[in-house]
Amino acid sequence: MVSGLGEQLVIVSNRGPVTFSRTESGEREYSRGAGGLVTALNAVSRRQEGAVWIASAMSEEDAAVSRENVPYEVEDLRVTFVEHDPDAYSLMYNHIANPLLWFVQHGLYDLPYSPGLGDDTRRAWEEGYVTVNRNFAEATAGAIAGAESPVILLHDYQLYMVPRFLRERLVSDAFISLFVHIPWPEPDYWRVLPRYIREGVLESLLETSIVAFHTRRYARNFIETATAFLGAEGDAERGIIRHEDREIWVKAYPISIDPGEFKELASDEAVEAEEEALRNLPGQLVVRVDRMDLSKNTVRGFEAYGRMLERHPEMREQVTFLARVQPSREDVREYARYAEVVQETVDRVNKDHGTDAWKPIELAMEDNFPRSIAAYKNYDVLLVNAVRDGMNLVAKEAAVVNDRGGVLVLSENAGAYEELGEHALTVNPFDLDEQAEAIYRALTMPAGERARKARALKQAVEANTIEHWVQAQIRDIASYREGGGEKQSAAPDAL
Amino acid sequence: MVSGLGEQLVIVSNRGPVTFSRTESGEREYSRGAGGLVTALNAVSRRQEGAVWIASAMSEEDAAVSRENVPYEVEDLRVTFVEHDPDAYSLMYNHIANPLLWFVQHGLYDLPYSPGLGDDTRRAWEEGYVTVNRNFAEATAGAIAGAESPVILLHDYQLYMVPRFLRERLVSDAFISLFVHIPWPEPDYWRVLPRYIREGVLESLLETSIVAFHTRRYARNFIETATAFLGAEGDAERGIIRHEDREIWVKAYPISIDPGEFKELASDEAVEAEEEALRNLPGQLVVRVDRMDLSKNTVRGFEAYGRMLERHPEMREQVTFLARVQPSREDVREYARYAEVVQETVDRVNKDHGTDAWKPIELAMEDNFPRSIAAYKNYDVLLVNAVRDGMNLVAKEAAVVNDRGGVLVLSENAGAYEELGEHALTVNPFDLDEQAEAIYRALTMPAGERARKARALKQAVEANTIEHWVQAQIRDIASYREGGGEKQSAAPDAL
Repeated sequence: MVSGLGEQLVIVSNRGPVTFSRTESGEREYSRGAGGLVTALNAVSRRQEGAVWIASAMSEEDAAVSRENVPYEVEDLRVTFVEHDPDAYSLMYNHIANPLLWFVQHGLYDLPYSPGLGDDTRRAWEEGYVTVNRNFAEATAGAIAGAESPVILLHDYQLYMVPRFLRERLVSDAFISLFVHIPWPEPDYWRVLPRYIREGVLESLLETSIVAFHTRRYARNFIETATAFLGAEGDAERGIIRHEDREIWVKAYPISIDPGEFKELASDEAVEAEEEALRNLPGQLVVRVDRMDLSKNTVRGFEAYGRMLERHPEMREQVTFLARVQPSREDVREYARYAEVVQETVDRVNKDHGTDAWKPIELAMEDNFPRSIAAYKNYDVLLVNAVRDGMNLVAKEAAVVNDRGGVLVLSENAGAYEELGEHALTVNPFDLDEQAEAIYRALTMPAGERARKARALKQAVEANTIEHWVQAQIRDIASYREGGGEKQSAAPDAL
Repeated sequence: MVSGLGEQLVIVSNRGPVTFSRTESGEREYSRGAGGLVTALNAVSRRQEGAVWIASAMSEEDAAVSRENVPYEVEDLRVTFVEHDPDAYSLMYNHIANPLLWFVQHGLYDLPYSPGLGDDTRRAWEEGYVTVNRNFAEATAGAIAGAESPVILLHDYQLYMVPRFLRERLVSDAFISLFVHIPWPEPDYWRVLPRYIREGVLESLLETSIVAFHTRRYARNFIETATAFLGAEGDAERGIIRHEDREIWVKAYPISIDPGEFKELASDEAVEAEEEALRNLPGQLVVRVDRMDLSKNTVRGFEAYGRMLERHPEMREQVTFLARVQPSREDVREYARYAEVVQETVDRVNKDHGTDAWKPIELAMEDNFPRSIAAYKNYDVLLVNAVRDGMNLVAKEAAVVNDRGGVLVLSENAGAYEELGEHALTVNPFDLDEQAEAIYRALTMPAGERARKARALKQAVEANTIEHWVQAQIRDIASYREGGGEKQSAAPDAL
C-alpha cells in the first residue's frame, strides 16, 4: 500500500475509464476511454491495490454491470457504475454542468443577453444535478462501507455536491478531495449563478479536505470566492481556508501527461502513415488541435492567421494552417453557431489569400487520434490561443513528440501559461494583431532560437509529468491526514 | 475658503457643466447640462471661491471660449475648455472610452467573439486617449500655475492617464484624486485589455492621492487589480495602497442627489401636466427610466414582466409597464442591435398579453425630463435590474419624489445595492423568474408593508445626500494633506 493512501481508495468521476457493450453474440466487451483525465486517473488508480473507480453508467451494459453490485475488474482497474434516471442525468449534464457551470467558469456568456435563468434552472439543479450527485454519494458510501480511513478522490464540475452528501452519510474519518479541472473564476462571475447554486457548491466544497486546481490563479480565486460568499476565513498565501472549525487545503497541482506514452504513440505505424499526408502540405505547418468549443478561440486564431498573411504577403504559399477541430456539443445552439462562424472564417481567409496551388487553412473537423499525433510531430508553430482553458494538455502532448523544433504560441489565459509561458510566445487571446505577429515571429525565428525554445519547452513538460502530479497529491493526502488537517506546516508552498 | 481645500480647486471632467453657442444675432449664449455627475460636481465647485472647471470643448463656441485663455464666469461657475483635435477626440471617445473601457468595466463583452483588439487599438490609445489626456493635463497645469497646494479633482474613465501627465508637469504638492463613476471589475476582466492599457491606467491611477469609487466592492476590486498587475502592496481592509514610496487611499463615496432639488422639480407645472397623461394608463404602474444601454438589462426586464403576466393572468389590465428609455449611442452596432431586441421583446409581450383596452408595455424612447419626473412620482414599482451599474441615481431620484408608496426592485449588481438593498426587493439580474416574482410581489404587497419600505428607502437616500458626498471627500482631502498621505489613522473606515 502506498504511504498516505488509506485502506480504501475510491476515484469518482462522471465519465469512467471503460464503457461496456454486448457483441452481437451476446458477449460483454469493453472499450477503454482516452483523454487526459482518464489517463491521469489511471495513473492514480494503479497506485493502490483494490482501488475502485466509480463513474456514471453511459451504456445499457454499464447499467447491467452496475446492477451486479460488485466492482468489475478490467485489466488493472476495478470499476463500479452508478445508474442514473436518464431525465435526471440529462438535466445535470445538459442544463447545469455543460451550459451553466462550463460557461460561468470559462467566462463565455454574452451577459447582456444570456443566461436567462429561472425556475427551469432550479428544477434542473434540484431534480438533475443534486439527484445525480446524491447517487454518486450513495455509491461512494457503499464502496467504502466499513473501511478505515478511506480516501475519496472526486473529479470535476459534475460532482460539486458530492462532498456534502457524502458527509451526511459518513461518520468515518474519510479523506475527501475534489479536483476542479476547469478554470475557477473570480467572485463576481459567480454572481451570475443563482444564490442556491453558488452557495450550495461552495458549502459542499468546504466539506472536503483538499480542493485542487491546475493553477495557483484558480486556487486563489477559489479562496476569494469562499471568503466573499460564505465569509470563510481564507489565507491565500498558504492555501488554507478555515470554515466552521474545519481546515480545507486549497492546492494547485498542474496536471500533465505521461511523456513515455506519447513518445511510444509517436512511433506507431498508424501515426507514421498519417505523416505522409502531412508532408504534402505546402510550406511550414501551423497546427491547432482542440474541441470545437467557444473557449478555444478558434475564430480569432484564423482571423489572426489571415492578418499575418495580409501583413506579410511573402508568407503566402510558405505556410499551411492545419486545424484539427473535433466536433463537440453540436446540438447546443451556441456551439452550432460557433461552428458556423469558424467555417465562415476559414472560407474567407482561404478565399482572400489562397491560390490555385495553395489553401492557407486545412480544416479537419474530425476526431482521429493518430492524425493528431502526426500533426503534433510536425508542427512548426502550435497555436493554443484559448479565451480560457483549465490547463490545455495539447500543449504538453505536442511538445514532447514534436521533432521539428516547433514553437508554441500560448494564450495568457490557458492554465498551461503558468508552467510553459516562459518557453512560448505568449499572447493576449483578444488581440488579433498580437497573435498575428506571434505566428509570424514563430515562423521566422532563427533556427537556433527555435531549437532552444523547443528543447526548453519539452524539458518543462518532462519536469512535471503525470507521475509528479500523482505523487504531489499522495504526499499531501498523507500530510493532511498526519496533521488531521491541522498541521499547517505542510501547506506553505500550496500556492 | 473651506477647510481642507487648497488655494486653488480644479475640477476636470470630459463633459462640462455648460455648453456655449451663438444666437443668430451673434450673441454668445449657454445651456447648463443636466445629469447626476454635473449636479454633483456643481455642488463641489460651489464650495470654493475661484474654483475652475475644466472640460472638453463640445461646440465651436466652447472652442472659442477656450481660446480666450481665461476661465469664463457663468453664474457661480468658472469654466475652461480644452480644445482637442477632432480625430484624437473621436479615437478617445469612440474607440477607447465608450466601447473598450465601458464594456470591460461593465462586463458586457461576448468574449468568444469580441473584442478583436489589435493595432487599431494601440493607435486609438496613443493618438486618441493619450493625446486627449495630455491636453487635459496641460490645461490643468496651466490653471494651477503658481498656486500653493492646489486640489485637482479628476472625474471618470475618460481621464485615467491625466494623473501621470500631471505629475510629469508638476513639482508642486498638488493633491490629485480621480473618481471612477463606473464599476471597477476584478483583475481577470482587466486581462481582456492589452497590457499597455491596463498597466498604463493602473500606473497612472497610482500617481493620485485618492482613487474614489461609488462602492466598497469597486474599491476592493481596484486594490486587487493594482496588486495583481503592478505588484503594489494593498491593504483592502484599510483602503490603502503603497506603491513606490507613495501612499494612495482607495475610498468609496456613494454618490447621491440633492433631494430638495428633486422635490422642487416634482411640483413643477410641467411635471404636473405630464402626470395627467400617466393617470390614463390602466392599473398600477411599473416604471423604468434609463438610457438604452447593454448594461441596463432592459430586455430581461421586459421578459420578466411577460413571465409575470403569464404566471399571474389575474394581473392583466391591472398593471402597465411604463418604460422611459433614452436613445443612446445609436451609431454603435452593439447598441443598435440591442435597441432592436428591446423593441422586439416589447412587441412580443404586448402581442402575447395585450387586449383591445390595454397595452401591457408603454415604451417611450425619448429624453424628456419632466415626463421622467412624473413617472418617478407615480410608480408603484420601480425596476432597476441592471446587469451592472456604477451607482444608478434613478433609484435615488425616484425614491425621494414618489408619492405612491412605490416599491423598488433592485439588481444585486447595481452600485445602489450596497446602500438601498435592504429597503428593496433585490434580484439576480440574470434570473428571469426571480425578477418576475419580485415584480409580482411588489405589485401585491400589503399597503402597510409597501408604505414602510417606501419610507425607509426615502430615508436611506436622505441620510446620504450629495452634500454628504461632497463633505466626506473634503474631509478626506484635509486628512490626507494633514498626514501628507501618511497619517494612516484617517483611513480605517475607508472600506
